[in-house]
Amino acid sequence: MPVRFERLALIGIGLIGSSIARAARQAGIVGSIAVQSRRPETVATAERLGLGDDYTTDIAEAVAGADLVVACVPVGACEAVAKAMAPHLADGAIVSDVGSVKAAVIRQMEPHLPDRVHFVPAHPVAGTEHSGPEAGFAELFRNRWCILTPLPGTDPDATARLRAFWEALGSNVEAMPAEHHDMVLAITSHVPHLIAYNIVGTAAHLEEVTQSEVMKFAAGGFRDFTRIAASDPTMWRDVFLNNREAVLEMLARFNEDLTTLQRAIRWGDGDTLLELFTRTRAIRRGIIEAGQEVAAPDFGRQAMR
Amino acid sequence: MPVRFERLALIGIGLIGSSIARAARQAGIVGSIAVQSRRPETVATAERLGLGDDYTTDIAEAVAGADLVVACVPVGACEAVAKAMAPHLADGAIVSDVGSVKAAVIRQMEPHLPDRVHFVPAHPVAGTEHSGPEAGFAELFRNRWCILTPLPGTDPDATARLRAFWEALGSNVEAMPAEHHDMVLAITSHVPHLIAYNIVGTAAHLEEVTQSEVMKFAAGGFRDFTRIAASDPTMWRDVFLNNREAVLEMLARFNEDLTTLQRAIRWGDGDTLLELFTRTRAIRRGIIEAGQEVAAPDFGRQAMR
Repeated sequence: MPVRFERLALIGIGLIGSSIARAARQAGIVGSIAVQSRRPETVATAERLGLGDDYTTDIAEAVAGADLVVACVPVGACEAVAKAMAPHLADGAIVSDVGSVKAAVIRQMEPHLPDRVHFVPAHPVAGTEHSGPEAGFAELFRNRWCILTPLPGTDPDATARLRAFWEALGSNVEAMPAEHHDMVLAITSHVPHLIAYNIVGTAAHLEEVTQSEVMKFAAGGFRDFTRIAASDPTMWRDVFLNNREAVLEMLARFNEDLTTLQRAIRWGDGDTLLELFTRTRAIRRGIIEAGQEVAAPDFGRQAMR
Repeated sequence: MPVRFERLALIGIGLIGSSIARAARQAGIVGSIAVQSRRPETVATAERLGLGDDYTTDIAEAVAGADLVVACVPVGACEAVAKAMAPHLADGAIVSDVGSVKAAVIRQMEPHLPDRVHFVPAHPVAGTEHSGPEAGFAELFRNRWCILTPLPGTDPDATARLRAFWEALGSNVEAMPAEHHDMVLAITSHVPHLIAYNIVGTAAHLEEVTQSEVMKFAAGGFRDFTRIAASDPTMWRDVFLNNREAVLEMLARFNEDLTTLQRAIRWGDGDTLLELFTRTRAIRRGIIEAGQEVAAPDFGRQAMR
């Protein structure tokens, strides 16, 4: 039997929230959708886009009667959202989120949620560098992974229902402990974003090279980094502040390895460089084989022109 | 009057050499093309692809009678190529290259070339992560920049003819001193490649996170780095060994800035993070406006599925 929720409440309606609204509607697995944003302009945009059935800035109103509530807000806003929704949640509702960090979200939300609801944290590993309700699209989650991090006491039936929900949106679903999620994402997402933001910042502040030169000659590699360095600033600030330990640990590894390369360059050790550069090709092939990347050269940019 | 060369000799026929062959043929600006590679298999592949008119493993044979000779080999092979071609070059020929490093290429080639030829070093800032003659295509240089680094004594007419050649292949052309080129490329291309290779290497060697997890969840940002970390290993080894000073200088800036971010994360300084993350968005917009990047979200990967 396909999963069905009578009423889905989306708290926050940016790239991820609006993509959930579109995908859930397209999949025909929700009766109605309540859309909430704290900003009236965003609520108005969502209404203009026809993303839901009811629109409000009020969290209490949005969650009333919902059997699935998904917080689609920056990680740093999760505690306030949990507090605001708690007294108004329906008995037996599933409460979830989409945060890129899981242990901190659990610490912030879980203490405030009543026992009569099921809290199942989730993280769809999908996104683009654009943000806001207009940036969403129904296919965003298709063939992407969604990671659930249920707590030890979580009702398995609630976890199964949320898994079926994400599968209906097109995702592959995997469950793992929140701490492990945070370590995996530190290396596959958080540190990559940090070093992308960092190199773009470095390039913008040189005396020897002008910004105009950086932009003109960006096709030499730099432009690949600018995509993720154009991601939502508030979301990413919160990710780093809330996954500090894992990010700092992975960053320390990155720095150790970079120092080794730096030394190899300084001393003209071409073998060390060649060995690494040969090994890294295999990883990309693996990602393409795992269906998580397009095989087109240069991301298919040529074909798009 | 459009530029025309009676005979183009391509020394090396990988991604860049084969793209020049295709683009020059398409533009109708060469009489005939001599294709050389030191590997007989590569010569055979080039012949099967119909990239030129004459095919050889012998540099002397390839350059004989050519009025334009372009070395399309890794930077580390430039000296040997210059030595091998020197006695056989036609009077008044233009000799150029496509290396990603310019001062070292000049140091390696210039002393060996006879006065009766015009040496005009060049660097087309274009490429994909694929290599070999089959990876080339005629549109590779279209709307990309090609940087010429003529020497102080270079004949302006030879420089003008090479400029016209690259413009006919679809490139925008700019001239600058070799040392400045090497600094600009260190930040826009060489350091980005180094840190991409590095993070992919780091991710492959963790105990806490499996390679399978890295590949599955790569859509969180990591996969963007794997593209340039799949570039030709020999070419990139030579780039780092031959642009050591500029790469180490830019890497030092990158490291200083990264240490500042690391400290901000450790001490919970969200303002520093938010300020940088907001600033970096503008750089991407600039690159898109400069026509050096596609504006499609996620590099248009969704549209390509």
